[in-house]
Amino acid sequence: MRALNHPDISAVSLPSVLNALADEIRLTVVRQLAEAGGVVCGQFDVPVSMSTLSHHLKVLREAGLLRVTPEGSFRRHELRLSEMEARFPGVLSSILQASS
Amino acid sequence: MRALNHPDISAVSLPSVLNALADEIRLTVVRQLAEAGGVVCGQFDVPVSMSTLSHHLKVLREAGLLRVTPEGSFRRHELRLSEMEARFPGVLSSILQASS
Repeated sequence: MRALNHPDISAVSLPSVLNALADEIRLTVVRQLAEAGGVVCGQFDVPVSMSTLSHHLKVLREAGLLRVTPEGSFRRHELRLSEMEARFPGVLSSILQASS
Repeated sequence: MRALNHPDISAVSLPSVLNALADEIRLTVVRQLAEAGGVVCGQFDVPVSMSTLSHHLKVLREAGLLRVTPEGSFRRHELRLSEMEARFPGVLSSILQASS
C-alpha cells in the first residue's frame, strides 16, 4: 500500500475544512471517530458503499481532518482533533457538538 | 421587489450551513456583517461582480445565515447570529473567529 499524503495543518484553509464537513456522511465519520476517542481501526458504520466511503475518507484526509495509516491488512483512521483545534480553535469541536 | 424567502432556523441543517460558509467570498461577507455589528445596508467590499455577489448572498440567505429586507431602493442585510448560535452553539462564532 503506497503512503498517503497528509497536508501540513498550517497549509489547510478554513473553507476546505468547512467543505469537508458539509456532508452528512463525512460528519458521521468524524463523529464516530470522536466517539471512539479519536481512532478507528477498521470500518465506519455508514450507509454507503465501500468506494463511496473511500471517497469521503479521502476528502477528510485531504482537508487535514483525518490521518490514515496502513496497519497490516487494515487502516488506522485518526482524527486530527488537537491539530485542528490549534489551527481553528472551537470550529471542529463546536461542529461535533452541534452534529451529535 | 418581491419578498424573499428565509428558512425557519429549525429547518436549517448543519451541512447546509457549513456548505454556505465553505467559500472565501461568503466568509468575507459574513465577517463584514459581524464587524458591522450584524447589519449592512448597501454593499459589501468583495472582489466579485454584482451578479456573483448576488448569488453568494442567496446561498447565505437560503442557509439561514442572512436576513435580507428591502428598504426603499436598497437592501438591508442582517446576520442571523443569535438564531444560528441558539441552533448550533459555537459553530458560527468560532468560524467567524477563525476566519478573522
